[in-house]
Amino acid sequence: MKYDILETRERVTADNTREAARLRESMRSDGVFFINLMASPGAGKTTLLKRTIQALGEEYRIAVMEADVDSDVDARAISELGARVIQLHSGGLCHMDADMTARGAAAMDLSGVDILFLENIGNLVCPAEFDVGSHRRVMLLSVPEGDDKPLKYPLMFRVSDLLLVSKIDTLPIFDFQKEALEAGVRTQNPKMPILYLSAKTGEGLDAWLDWLRREVRAFRTRAGKED
Amino acid sequence: MKYDILETRERVTADNTREAARLRESMRSDGVFFINLMASPGAGKTTLLKRTIQALGEEYRIAVMEADVDSDVDARAISELGARVIQLHSGGLCHMDADMTARGAAAMDLSGVDILFLENIGNLVCPAEFDVGSHRRVMLLSVPEGDDKPLKYPLMFRVSDLLLVSKIDTLPIFDFQKEALEAGVRTQNPKMPILYLSAKTGEGLDAWLDWLRREVRAFRTRAGKED
Repeated sequence: MKYDILETRERVTADNTREAARLRESMRSDGVFFINLMASPGAGKTTLLKRTIQALGEEYRIAVMEADVDSDVDARAISELGARVIQLHSGGLCHMDADMTARGAAAMDLSGVDILFLENIGNLVCPAEFDVGSHRRVMLLSVPEGDDKPLKYPLMFRVSDLLLVSKIDTLPIFDFQKEALEAGVRTQNPKMPILYLSAKTGEGLDAWLDWLRREVRAFRTRAGKED
Repeated sequence: MKYDILETRERVTADNTREAARLRESMRSDGVFFINLMASPGAGKTTLLKRTIQALGEEYRIAVMEADVDSDVDARAISELGARVIQLHSGGLCHMDADMTARGAAAMDLSGVDILFLENIGNLVCPAEFDVGSHRRVMLLSVPEGDDKPLKYPLMFRVSDLLLVSKIDTLPIFDFQKEALEAGVRTQNPKMPILYLSAKTGEGLDAWLDWLRREVRAFRTRAGKED
């Protein structure tokens, strides 16, 4: 049966480019490498952050901004690991913008922090549209969500610097084809690295930690700071 | 370690109440029972719709509005089953509103249709904020997303009339406690029915189909139409 395709509305995005650039530069001069972590609800952002803090806690001082519409369950989980964390509530908004992020950063003690993560609101649409002033954008896609997501949420794949495919321990039970995913990703972002991992079994975590170490080193070189 | 909670912004929602009421009444007088189906990306909305059309295709004429930021993969899948379907593109927006939905409905042939589904944009935040003119709101939550979602996305649970927990065939491999989920749901929506199902194995599908049949009957009674 045939069907129509109807474009129902154009998106008008508020320009927060200037505020994002300001925040990015301020973080750079403070030596804080800032990562915007984005994903759907339940893709495993908090679990990945917990594993990362556990693995790199001796090497780097890590801080986390937890953005949620409501609750503080994630902030509590991160806090229990001894990392500096602040909970941001978006008041119903589906994303963070640079102004909200800057206010979060200003409310935290970031002295001596090497890596700051923003765990963005769980969502593949709105967070992709707003530069929060981060140095890198990392997106998580979990195997249960399916391999067709690059076609449905192209902007998120386009703006990200790294794709982490999470929950790969569940590959045997879901109909998820790596080839299909990668073909979809390539249409949006030909050069983005893709890493596969399971925070549960630990498989693939090392490649993510190595990516992070390399990025911190490169950031410090750019920032003119000795490694 | 302690952490702060910062309220970063209040949400200002455009009022689309009047347009939603108009559309709801127009559908009612046309005898079209209209359901707004909401969930995260990859929770299984399209698969549920496919199973529902396959199971009830002889009993009811079913039509579907597929809302996506981009692509038409879901519309194609539904169309292959012979159901009437239209693809709506939101132009980057993370939700549908009543005006966009009304334009979608106007562009479809709804004559003789018993049940119209809107497959909303995959997202637990924005779709909860907009009345699209539906008679019932049904939300899907998949087991891999986790049992803590009512705390993080309270509005979605508050505004829904039915919660379908999908992918229950994966319960053995995820740390998902039904008791924890239900306790969370109860804090937001004490009376909402919760049904557990797997579109893959078919477990629990009958309860969903029965809910749908009951709702259609009740709708027709209210609409003064003979069943």
